[in-house]
Parts: sequence; C-alpha cells; structure tokens
Amino acid sequence: MDTASRQIAILGSTGSIGQQTLDVIRALPHRFSVIGLAAGQNSDLLAQQIAEFQPRLVSYQNNQALQHPASAEYEVLSIEDMARHPEVDTVVIATSGKAGLSPTLAAVKAGKTVCLANKEALVMAGRIVCGEAARKGARILPIDSEHSAIWQCLNGEKEQPSQLILTASGGPFRNYSPARLKEVTAEQALNHPSWQMGPKVTIDSATLMNKGLEVIEAHWLFDMPFDKIRILVHPQSIVHSMVEFADGSVKAQLSHPDMRLPIQYALSYPERWPNPQLPRLDWNRISNLDFEPPDYKTFPCLKLAIEAGTMEETYPAVLCGADEVAVELFLSGRIGFVDIARCVERTLEQHQAIANPTLDEILAADAWARDRVRQIVEGNTG
Amino acid sequence: MDTASRQIAILGSTGSIGQQTLDVIRALPHRFSVIGLAAGQNSDLLAQQIAEFQPRLVSYQNNQALQHPASAEYEVLSIEDMARHPEVDTVVIATSGKAGLSPTLAAVKAGKTVCLANKEALVMAGRIVCGEAARKGARILPIDSEHSAIWQCLNGEKEQPSQLILTASGGPFRNYSPARLKEVTAEQALNHPSWQMGPKVTIDSATLMNKGLEVIEAHWLFDMPFDKIRILVHPQSIVHSMVEFADGSVKAQLSHPDMRLPIQYALSYPERWPNPQLPRLDWNRISNLDFEPPDYKTFPCLKLAIEAGTMEETYPAVLCGADEVAVELFLSGRIGFVDIARCVERTLEQHQAIANPTLDEILAADAWARDRVRQIVEGNTG
Repeated sequence: MDTASRQIAILGSTGSIGQQTLDVIRALPHRFSVIGLAAGQNSDLLAQQIAEFQPRLVSYQNNQALQHPASAEYEVLSIEDMARHPEVDTVVIATSGKAGLSPTLAAVKAGKTVCLANKEALVMAGRIVCGEAARKGARILPIDSEHSAIWQCLNGEKEQPSQLILTASGGPFRNYSPARLKEVTAEQALNHPSWQMGPKVTIDSATLMNKGLEVIEAHWLFDMPFDKIRILVHPQSIVHSMVEFADGSVKAQLSHPDMRLPIQYALSYPERWPNPQLPRLDWNRISNLDFEPPDYKTFPCLKLAIEAGTMEETYPAVLCGADEVAVELFLSGRIGFVDIARCVERTLEQHQAIANPTLDEILAADAWARDRVRQIVEGNTG
Repeated sequence: MDTASRQIAILGSTGSIGQQTLDVIRALPHRFSVIGLAAGQNSDLLAQQIAEFQPRLVSYQNNQALQHPASAEYEVLSIEDMARHPEVDTVVIATSGKAGLSPTLAAVKAGKTVCLANKEALVMAGRIVCGEAARKGARILPIDSEHSAIWQCLNGEKEQPSQLILTASGGPFRNYSPARLKEVTAEQALNHPSWQMGPKVTIDSATLMNKGLEVIEAHWLFDMPFDKIRILVHPQSIVHSMVEFADGSVKAQLSHPDMRLPIQYALSYPERWPNPQLPRLDWNRISNLDFEPPDYKTFPCLKLAIEAGTMEETYPAVLCGADEVAVELFLSGRIGFVDIARCVERTLEQHQAIANPTLDEILAADAWARDRVRQIVEGNTG
C-alpha cells in the first residue's frame, strides 16, 4: 500500500477517538486523504470537520442529511455504505457502543483495513466479524492502547505467545472498599486518573467492565484462549500491555498515555512515523512502575465479562447491552455505581442464551438485555 | 536453516556462558549437535563435557592437546580453525576478554552465524568485525541480556529506532558515596545482586565499565550513534533494555535474570522454544520496577568507555586492555576499587591513538595499555 495516500473514512469523527484521529491526520497531512466523515451527534463539530477536511462522503445519524451543509460538496450516505465505499481503503471505527458493529461488519465484508477502536463489534459478534475478515482478507488493526501494545509486541514473532498480559490502570476507585464504592458519584467516576476518554468508556474503566471487554476483544483479535489472558493493574498507565512467549521472554509496550499513538500506529503500520505532537516518555520523571493483581471481588464486572466471553453464545451481547443501559442509568443518577454490576449480573443470569447466534439473534439479545435492565431498575422484576 | 540440527561450536565452554549454553543444549538435545568445544582453562570440566557431548572438534588453550583425553575420538585444533570449520554453522563465542576477538573474526570471515557473548570483539574492533560480517553475510547475534533485549524489541520493525535504552542493575555499590567506594573489597565486588557471572564481568558491573562496554557494543550491533544510546539504572534486572521508535512508542523486554534465555534465543531465532528449565516472571511477586539515572560522577568508568567508543581509533582497545589488567590487579589486592577507573583514565590520556587501525595495530594498542597499567601501578610513571 502506498503509505503516502491512505484513503480514510472515520466513523464517529466527532467523538474522542474520532477527534484524535483527525489530530493525527492534521499533524501528518500528506500521509492521508480523508474520504469520509460520519458522526452520530454534534453536527456543529461535524460541519467544522467537513469544512476543514473536505471529505467526499458524509454521514450524520446514519441516514439524515447534515443540517449544516459546509461549503464543500459531498455525498450523504449511510455509515455502512461509507464503510464499504470503493474509494475508501482504511476505515476507522471510532463509534462507541453497539453502533460500531454494523459498519465494522460492512467494512470487513468489503475487505477494507479496519482500524478498530470500538469494542462492542468484537465483543458481541467476534466470531462473525473475525470469520468474515478471514474470508475476505480484511485486516482488523486495534486502536485500543492495550491491544495496540500486544500487537506491537507480537510484531515479527513467528509463533503464538504463551500469555497476554493486559494492564489496567485500576480506574479512579482502585483500592476503594466496597462500602466506599457505594457512595461514588458520576462526577467522580468520570474523572479518570490517566486517560481522557468518552463518558461510557470512562465509567467502564471505573467498574473494570472496560478491562473485561478488552479481554474478550483480545481473545478474538489474537486468537488466544481466555485462560491465557491475564490482567495486571498498573496505575501509571505507561506499560500498555505485555506478551509472554514460549521461552518465557516477555515484551512490553510503553508510552505516555495518549490515544494518538495507537491511532497513528494503526494508520502507519508496518511503518512508524515521527510526529512531533506525540509526547515521549521522560525517563528523568519515571522512577517506578507499579503492578498489582486486580480486585475481582470489589469490581465484579471484570469477572462477569470474562465469564460471558468464555460462555460465548449470546452472553457477550447481553453483557454489552446491559452494561450500556446500566451506565446510562448511573450517569443520569438513577442507580448507584455498584448497581451497574448488579444489573449486568442479574440480566446475564436471566438470559436464555442461543448457541451459534446469527447477527440478528445477537442484536435481539442486546435489545432484550437493554429492556431487562430498565425493567430491573424500575422494580418490575424480582 | 533446519532448526532441528544446529551444528554448534562453543568457544569458552568451561566458563559461565559456556556452561549455561550447554545447559540449554541439555534441555533441548534434539535441537543441536555439539560439533566443537574449546576452553582456555579447567581441563577437568572440559574432559567431562567431551565425555557427555562427544564433540568431533576440541581445543584447549588454543593449541595444546587436551591432557585428559575422554573416551570419544576427536580432532584437536586451534579455536580459529574450530570457528571456521565447515561442519560448524553456529559459533558461540563465550570466551571473556580479548581472547574472543580472533575466533570471532575467523567465524565472521567464514560466514558463520556468530552468537556473541564476548564484548571485547566488538568493542576493540567493531568496525573490522562488522565490516567482515557485512561482506561475508555472517550474522552476529547477541547473547548479552541487554543486547538480546534490544534485538528482540527490534524484531519485525522496519526502521531504525530513535533511541536505545540500556538498563543497568547499578551493581552491588549503587548509591555508595565516593568515600565508601574507596573501601570496598574484591569479595564485596564479586557479590553481584542479580546476575551470576564470571569474575571479570562481575567487577566490570560493579564499576559500570561493563555498561560502558555494552554501549560501544550496541553502537556496532545496531548501527546507532552514541548520542542515541541512553543508560537507565534498573536495580531489579527484570527489564533488560528498551527501544524507543520514531513515533515515541517504546518496547521493553523483560524476564527473570537468567542468561540461559538470551543464550537460547540466539540459538532458536527466529523461533522461540519452550524450555521448562527457563524460569518465568511471577507477576504475583513483582510489585514495582524502579528506574533512575546512572551516577556518572561516582562511577567514572561509564563515561570513560562512552568517550573511548565515541573517539574510536585505538581508544576502545586501550580501554579494554587497561581495564582487564586493572581488574586483575584489583582482584589480587594490588589496587583499590576506585583505582580501576584511575588506571584506565590515565592510560587513555597517555595513549597516542592510531586512526583506522588494522587488527595488528588494535592488538598492539591493547598490549601497550596492559603494560602501561602495570607501570602506573608499580609507580614507574607520574
């Protein structure tokens, strides 16, 4: 591929990852052509982005014409059509939640290079997405910092590793007691110690659900059994993950916690490009890196996610749907922080799973889980 | 190369690295044929090794017949002839000191794969050795843990890194004051906190000369300018070195401090082989990794080495020769610990360097430096 002219579509361009992707492109303008921009909200920002990057393809709320047409002319289309558009070679999936699943599948089926920041696509439908990618020769390149770290450490290695070690910051409530955790507010939970992220991912980081989803994602991305994926809390968020190989050697990837690096690496791979805007680690300021095992008991979402991933079937879809609604209810003050895990757990317990589900069955399980959480919170069920 | 039948010669088989190389071969017997064993001392152990591994080629003190012939029949030859023998494809250079230079050059000229544990070959004659390797297509694979770490981190990367970060344990006298350092004994210096090594390397680790030699070695092995090689003290000796890339991403290699891993990796590359005898990192016991800048003032050997490497010419040979004799004099109680650096510094100052030296000129500079240190210690010079 000619690295001087990557033809990019960014789905979710007004979100945190989307904006940082455009930051990378701004810093390295000759490397990319922005062919498409898609957003589900923040039409003002999308209009600014359109004016700046002059994309030929635009999508807003998937099927609506943009209310603020910019000066450039562009074609309005669905995110799926943008993901499979012939002029696009690289699709950045920067949407959060289950909205990422359908365009990911469209991009993969069209054989595109998919730079994936969305977790739900692989968590909910890993078998379907990876199966299509294998059939169509589409490459799925991770943008999550942990999976990017693992991918970087696997670079050049010939064999399957013996263990993946995902690091976790531990979130803002690391070392909190269960009693103290009951009292935490949405404001506290949104104040992540090391990463700037969107609200859903930030709350998932606080519950460790995010790390559980990442375990499932790693299982699919790197074809690793769940019992060979380990989690290690590392509060400084400098070691982004590690890989242990057959001979016992371990490789780790380190950097300043800044999502622009994994975004750029997915776009530059197999090259690495200098970017003066990316911060470098300052070893005069790093005196120690700390590690500790995660507290599975105080943060039950982690184990719930790993169990749902291991059971597979429609459980991961239920996990995602239930968590998404529970987080919304927490952010709007309807439930407490520890209720997020309770809602997810009860919904998983009540689920009648379907083996080898189709995409429709996965989406139906997700929808069922969302309703179920609302019912649980409204007190309609036991 | 058929990995099931590496045809190995081990030069320095009775030393620390040589014995650990044979440990690796013992654990993975079907991977290797031991074609040659060479030792400069400890003929009893060599005889045992001959009886166990039945090599076809043997060398003792380079040109003498072994005094204890074992039951097997073998050809006695010089280490240079062993290094270039047609039946050998991989030569492990496990001799310490300048004795490693001549067989390294012989192996490189014969196009062998050279697994290099000896530092002096590259430090003294890096330009000549690397030039011959490039001409003959010989590969030089590092066995030093730091260089193995860098090499592992570079695996699969397409471009030159932006920085190499060599870690250093700091040795047994880390954080010692200059006054306290004056009083340390050979026994204390031989008691390294994390690595089991031969006496010369152990003293060099205590003075940090070893790290300085490694900087020069890294310069040649990875074609990196000296100002892009950084040293970081890391007392736990778990992170063996790191590499920073153009985009600011850093990769590190970690393992239990055990030389058998870098030895095996040099022998298994590009594969990695499971070896139940190699210890794995236990993340339940690792709670923190510490880093600090080195103390160049208290440990002047580090800067002396980097300066000699940067000036090149015959200075690195003088550095090696002077250090080897100074360490001998310290071990025999003739000079104090801090006198090692003083002897090396004064010898470097008095040296009349030769630009673009031949191998003979390099060896002559080494010999001059050895004499000079003895003269300095005997008080014959100012």
